[in-house]
Amino acid sequence: MTGNLDNLRVVLVAARNPLNIGAAARAMSNFGVRRLRVVNPYEVAFREARSAVGASGLLAKAEQYESVAEAIADCKLVVGTTVAGARRDLQHRLQRLDEGARAIKRQLKTGPVALLFGSERFGLSNQELSHCHWVMRIPTREEHGSMNLGQAVAVCLYELVRGKKTAAAKTAPGKKENASATSGDVERLTQVLLKVLDASGYVKPRAAAATEENLRRMVRRMELNANDTDMWLGMLRQMAWKLGATEKDHE
Amino acid sequence: MTGNLDNLRVVLVAARNPLNIGAAARAMSNFGVRRLRVVNPYEVAFREARSAVGASGLLAKAEQYESVAEAIADCKLVVGTTVAGARRDLQHRLQRLDEGARAIKRQLKTGPVALLFGSERFGLSNQELSHCHWVMRIPTREEHGSMNLGQAVAVCLYELVRGKKTAAAKTAPGKKENASATSGDVERLTQVLLKVLDASGYVKPRAAAATEENLRRMVRRMELNANDTDMWLGMLRQMAWKLGATEKDHE
Repeated sequence: MTGNLDNLRVVLVAARNPLNIGAAARAMSNFGVRRLRVVNPYEVAFREARSAVGASGLLAKAEQYESVAEAIADCKLVVGTTVAGARRDLQHRLQRLDEGARAIKRQLKTGPVALLFGSERFGLSNQELSHCHWVMRIPTREEHGSMNLGQAVAVCLYELVRGKKTAAAKTAPGKKENASATSGDVERLTQVLLKVLDASGYVKPRAAAATEENLRRMVRRMELNANDTDMWLGMLRQMAWKLGATEKDHE
Repeated sequence: MTGNLDNLRVVLVAARNPLNIGAAARAMSNFGVRRLRVVNPYEVAFREARSAVGASGLLAKAEQYESVAEAIADCKLVVGTTVAGARRDLQHRLQRLDEGARAIKRQLKTGPVALLFGSERFGLSNQELSHCHWVMRIPTREEHGSMNLGQAVAVCLYELVRGKKTAAAKTAPGKKENASATSGDVERLTQVLLKVLDASGYVKPRAAAATEENLRRMVRRMELNANDTDMWLGMLRQMAWKLGATEKDHE
């Protein structure tokens, strides 16, 4: 079990408040989750949280990244979090927290999973969400469309450890599932595809950002395994070469 | 649903920190629990929590008591809370949080239930616990024998609303499953992709048949929905056009 939770990365995106970062770390320690990653935290907040009295080793070992893409590059499953009523324009498949946690626990047996929490004020942006395979919703009241960050982390991690005993089920031998692609590979695929489309005149300059988000979501919906991702990368690189679109800046 | 939760009283005993009192109130609001009672709070903390910016009406209406006995006088069931490893001398029957929550939900249908949380530093004393019918334990790690008060409240209330068909869950848009693509569309996509690859020099003449088979299987593994199939067709046709590969014989 501990082995499985070691595959979980809690990723705080653009957290503003040192107390919240500290609270998230405490909840992780309470429920036995050790890997904290922060993306673009408000610098002062992150420093304060680390130097707070009683700050855990967990916080000292937190890894800092400049982009969501880098923070999740080694993860095979990337899950966003939200609360009821927060986002009416969500493009992603929504799962209830209890259902989503089941899917996460399955994936944790085979490899790294990232669980993303957005900033205190705005949650996860569309751009940040575009890295997620799907989104998990904490069942809060619609009328109260925000939740304290430390509490959100506590509730999500509780759901992951809840009813542990059943999770320790037998690992059935048998046919190996083909390994999922890592988020890094999927992002690489997205970037090459974008290059090819750009060279083909598919991408309208004014809609470039939106197109990139759409593509990223679409590629993730494909839920490619590692072999198919390689195959796609090979095909797209050949197209890019033929179209005269170099991609060395993405390699 | 709301009716049942209206029977729940969250009772904070000897809370010291205004931020924690505020956080407990926020968690209650998030999960639709309205009745907050405080017993012997540190006066300054309670005043500060009430006057904090954004303090809820819930906090303004919180009832203050001088003893646990008074705070629970109208309740038919009184449940204490603790975390793993916190109390080795506990005299009470201990329930797991999920099992305890089930019992509480049954009782909420018939009358008031009090859920007690102790002070941040010491939890509930033996004297305070003596008012409880039994104690519910949050499944934290034994090695980390304390939990933030606001997070403890959030986790317990989440367990109480978990799995309920809340109003939020019912009315949420929930992103309709998109219809699957037809086999005809998937085959069309395969053919355009083949054209593009051919024009890019990806397909080796002697392996053309095998490549086509591989592609067909791969495209089907993607299990695209109808929208994504359209998107792929649009992208591939644009590439085909740019590469000078006509596809009229496939239309």
